[in-house]
Amino acid sequence: MNETTQNYFEKNREIHLSELKELLRIPSISAESQYKDDVSQAAHWITKSLQKAGMENVEVIPTDGHPVVYGDWLHAEGKPTVLIYGHYDVQPVDPVELWDSPPFEPDIRDNRIYARGASDDKGQTFMHIKALEALLQIEGALPFNFKFCIEGEEEIGSPNLDRFVAERKEQLAADVLVISDTPMLEKGRPAICTGLRGLCSLQIDVKGTKGDLHSGLYGGAVQNPIHALVQLLDSMRNEDGQITIDGFYDHVTPLSKEEKEAFEALGYDEGAMQQELEAPELFGEKGYTTLERTWVRPTLEVNGIYGGFQGEGVKTVIPAEAHAKITCRLVPDQDPEEVVSLIEKHIANHTPKGVTITIKRYDSGRPFATPIDHSAIQAAGRAYEKVYETPVAFTRMGGSVPIVETFNRLLQLPVVLMGFGLPNENFHAPNEHFHLENFDKGLLTLCEYWYELERTLTK
Amino acid sequence: MNETTQNYFEKNREIHLSELKELLRIPSISAESQYKDDVSQAAHWITKSLQKAGMENVEVIPTDGHPVVYGDWLHAEGKPTVLIYGHYDVQPVDPVELWDSPPFEPDIRDNRIYARGASDDKGQTFMHIKALEALLQIEGALPFNFKFCIEGEEEIGSPNLDRFVAERKEQLAADVLVISDTPMLEKGRPAICTGLRGLCSLQIDVKGTKGDLHSGLYGGAVQNPIHALVQLLDSMRNEDGQITIDGFYDHVTPLSKEEKEAFEALGYDEGAMQQELEAPELFGEKGYTTLERTWVRPTLEVNGIYGGFQGEGVKTVIPAEAHAKITCRLVPDQDPEEVVSLIEKHIANHTPKGVTITIKRYDSGRPFATPIDHSAIQAAGRAYEKVYETPVAFTRMGGSVPIVETFNRLLQLPVVLMGFGLPNENFHAPNEHFHLENFDKGLLTLCEYWYELERTLTK
Repeated sequence: MNETTQNYFEKNREIHLSELKELLRIPSISAESQYKDDVSQAAHWITKSLQKAGMENVEVIPTDGHPVVYGDWLHAEGKPTVLIYGHYDVQPVDPVELWDSPPFEPDIRDNRIYARGASDDKGQTFMHIKALEALLQIEGALPFNFKFCIEGEEEIGSPNLDRFVAERKEQLAADVLVISDTPMLEKGRPAICTGLRGLCSLQIDVKGTKGDLHSGLYGGAVQNPIHALVQLLDSMRNEDGQITIDGFYDHVTPLSKEEKEAFEALGYDEGAMQQELEAPELFGEKGYTTLERTWVRPTLEVNGIYGGFQGEGVKTVIPAEAHAKITCRLVPDQDPEEVVSLIEKHIANHTPKGVTITIKRYDSGRPFATPIDHSAIQAAGRAYEKVYETPVAFTRMGGSVPIVETFNRLLQLPVVLMGFGLPNENFHAPNEHFHLENFDKGLLTLCEYWYELERTLTK
Repeated sequence: MNETTQNYFEKNREIHLSELKELLRIPSISAESQYKDDVSQAAHWITKSLQKAGMENVEVIPTDGHPVVYGDWLHAEGKPTVLIYGHYDVQPVDPVELWDSPPFEPDIRDNRIYARGASDDKGQTFMHIKALEALLQIEGALPFNFKFCIEGEEEIGSPNLDRFVAERKEQLAADVLVISDTPMLEKGRPAICTGLRGLCSLQIDVKGTKGDLHSGLYGGAVQNPIHALVQLLDSMRNEDGQITIDGFYDHVTPLSKEEKEAFEALGYDEGAMQQELEAPELFGEKGYTTLERTWVRPTLEVNGIYGGFQGEGVKTVIPAEAHAKITCRLVPDQDPEEVVSLIEKHIANHTPKGVTITIKRYDSGRPFATPIDHSAIQAAGRAYEKVYETPVAFTRMGGSVPIVETFNRLLQLPVVLMGFGLPNENFHAPNEHFHLENFDKGLLTLCEYWYELERTLTK
């Protein structure tokens, strides 16, 4: 391992953490409009950080939603170009009362930094900036050309990035895309993610009578929208966790024997996961292991349901409406638009009597997978192994980063997903945090990666 | 019809309406603790009104919850005693934005008075007080002894009335109980309700993992509490609206041929009901008419459901919890405690994998039915016919007034349910109102009833 970079990061650790805390203090929640100015403030914070690192042509580029921050260093003439993607927006923080320290007051406890965005994805985006800053400070130059594309709408499905990338194909053109927004396998076990699930999302609104009714006077006379919704949702999945929407699995690439064996070789501890989540038992589509179910099998989840009385005690009401929010995680080669259409068709065929149903489509993203034997991925593997002193795991991931597929499709470049978060760091949940062991080792790994990649791409 | 009482009520109409408005201005919502003082204020208003009417021994009697108001007139020595029950508490007003005039600012439009409680039950309780006041003013005495028992917890299931009645059996002892808290069949068609459904209620809390999870990372790994709840609730009812809980219908008294024919003879207009409610279609237990389903068949309704994300857009979360509130309307001879036990047993047998379920029991009330040919009911029928000049309908009602069964069981007396509200007057919903035609005719009917009952009980 390179001792110069190691010394550099040790020397600058307090400054780096103090800067990261600054970024984490900005409540850049992209989903909630009252935080619009904070999102913008985070974008400007990123530009300053890029400039300080030595990036040029840094700009905050407006979109129809939150802006994208761009910056580059293009002085390695004739050399390849690396595009680094990250996002500076974060998830909402509710239920905020479950946080042990306030979500936007970063707090270091037990060598972990607690704050919304600590891991997903401010912490990891920040590391990419600091790695290049270090190389420029140490070497005076970078091994090849770099471009940053850091957006502010990842947590709301990147509604404007597709168009942004399409309109700026030349500006963003590169030979490889690197993203750190995926987790390690577990503490001490780095992983490179070679596939991400896609996403589609919709809302179901069930309407019964014109207003709420007294359940005594009208109970038995009319359909109850909650019952109707329950019946409809239950028709979408059987007790074995299989989705029963016609055609849902039609384009799912079957799990190959090799993949199955590779997953088994990871020795994933399902019992530990169950214990950690305090789940009564693990559960999912029958016939698959937990890893298979979360990595290479699609899901349909109800993310929210509401209707009628939610207060204390009893209200004898037949509500006029009931609602559900659904997202599906998709795998190659499912098409998000087609899956939503299948769900809509299922709803049309299964609408219970006595109610009307309307459907809102929300954002979607395609699933994505990249070959394990690609040289940019193998170089990342070697970098991890040098720093963590253990073989890297090649994994898939259940989450969706729809823009990965966008970049891959529009810019025609390989994507390397090398993350430093741990799976139990509560992304999207209260008490999100980032283990500083991976902050420290991650900075070294990124520097090693650029050296390794230089050897690979220029040999 | 008695012209003296008619003249009396015409002369005093403005004063009576002005007094009623005073009562309707008090937001005596028993379910919400911030209105505790208002509920108490309403109780005191009732005492003053009873005293003004000529009642004696008037007192506000504290309970563990909201107080009961008692008052009597016991100067008809050797004559029978009538107990009048009513309630001065009202339902919550949410969603308050759907009211055309504020719920506690009574407004007369189109010969209807709009306010929370106008019909259920302040308006009708007030009429009973004014009817006796009129008779005392006109005749100087009442035909027999009267007792009032007016409570403040009817809308939260009368949790303290059972004990109250049990402890004051002698004070409340009477020969007949009269209650006006049930609707007429429709405008111009008075009805005497000879049966009420009972009620049982519970809450289901489904718990999955210790916290909310990212639906990408964990989707497929664990049971989703919303799916589990949906599956559980759907197992309780089939697509024909029949409740599929083992033993649910075991003690239901089958509908007799005579009852079926009597219901059919009412010529109930299902189409008009559907249109008025703006329901896509009417729906309920297969094999029964709408009247049968709402009057003599039990129901199981989900009154509220909630879990996960309810905001705008999408949140890719697997929630840690999901909740549902259920009430059943029960008919003779179902036992509320037994039905809740059957539901609990069903839940235990149908709990989906990967979640734990806890159940909270809320209040319950027994179903009740009284013979149509009882002399006190027949006298009420004649009183209605004199004033409304049309035969009275003998109906059942789908709602529950659990205290009816309490009085019947503890005091061993027949119950006459003679109401003056119309079914579309939005009890428990925004824009509750009371048609003043039935305020005017109701006062006359009550006076006629006491004359008729005197003839019946003393002959």
